[in-house]
Amino acid sequence: MRRTGLLAQLIQNLCCLPGVGPKTAQRMAFQLLQRDRQNAKNLAETLLKAVNEIGFCQSCRIFTEQAVCDICQDNSRDTSSICVVESSADVWVVEQAAVFKGHYFVLHGRLSPLDGIGPDELGLAQFEQRLAHGQIKELILATNSTVEGEATAFYIAELARKHQVKAYRIAHGVPMGGELEFIDSGTLAHALNGRQQI
Amino acid sequence: MRRTGLLAQLIQNLCCLPGVGPKTAQRMAFQLLQRDRQNAKNLAETLLKAVNEIGFCQSCRIFTEQAVCDICQDNSRDTSSICVVESSADVWVVEQAAVFKGHYFVLHGRLSPLDGIGPDELGLAQFEQRLAHGQIKELILATNSTVEGEATAFYIAELARKHQVKAYRIAHGVPMGGELEFIDSGTLAHALNGRQQI
Ligand SMILES: [Zn+2]
Ligand SMILES: [Zn+2]
Repeated sequence: MRRTGLLAQLIQNLCCLPGVGPKTAQRMAFQLLQRDRQNAKNLAETLLKAVNEIGFCQSCRIFTEQAVCDICQDNSRDTSSICVVESSADVWVVEQAAVFKGHYFVLHGRLSPLDGIGPDELGLAQFEQRLAHGQIKELILATNSTVEGEATAFYIAELARKHQVKAYRIAHGVPMGGELEFIDSGTLAHALNGRQQI
Repeated sequence: MRRTGLLAQLIQNLCCLPGVGPKTAQRMAFQLLQRDRQNAKNLAETLLKAVNEIGFCQSCRIFTEQAVCDICQDNSRDTSSICVVESSADVWVVEQAAVFKGHYFVLHGRLSPLDGIGPDELGLAQFEQRLAHGQIKELILATNSTVEGEATAFYIAELARKHQVKAYRIAHGVPMGGELEFIDSGTLAHALNGRQQI
């Protein structure tokens, strides 16, 4: 079997996508070349642009190609209420639940000392300064209900207590061990409305 | 929910991949940006290069970035025996069966009058000239055993008969309605060895 050259390289590179093995990658490569050259070109160019231009929002750390994201620029939103989530995808999920009208803070991870992920890696030093300034009145801690997600929420709740900011943990409806990204909007709306101070 | 900008565009473009819906595309986009920027860059660059540089081998029409592919350049192979397949992927599958040592001809499709795919679109005018030259002694017709694949094989067998070239159809082991790409090597080896003249 001959799998050298550009086509083999393309198939190998497609395998870096989550859930894509060699067989799927091969099918993708052939479809892109056979039927979808314009789409393939668009995808390649957008991906390159995204990798080069998408960074963190200065304020909430959500993925954006702007300096400050649309949510942080939206004057109709409450700047005193901050929902803390693990990922940019989680922001979208919370937005879909449509019961939260404050701002966000995206950790891009969770505390995980064994992987070398501490408060600094999650932007929490910078976030603590904002807590100290007194503009933030409440935190809604919407990290995943995994062991690490709970530990992260607990850590941030301690920071909040230190600066006399109320901290709430989203509660009912999120199944234990579940990840926020895979929860339906109704359940999440319930979890947000049923938040408990911690 | 805010899905504007580069990230939304990336997710939309990822949906052009076969089997990738919006949810999977979102997971892919976040993984690429969160953990895999270097891989994402490599993938984008390889994909762009592939779209721009990969074309058909002048001789067998397999996908390659070279003018003539490695198989056609391999002097140890029998130039008088040609295996006709529907796609470049099928060449790899036949190579894995490791019982065929001739050359290939890739149709990049199958006869489908309703979709406007006739002999010209499959390169068969050019291929008939080669049949007329007399160098080719046998054809092995390894199109899929679908209705259109069978019709295509029958059409090419007629061309072969016209030019006194023997044509064989791969036979036993390929399940009816099945596609070559998804068949194991052992079954395919059996099908190649048990070929019947048509
Ligand atoms: Zn922001
Ligand atoms: Zn070739």
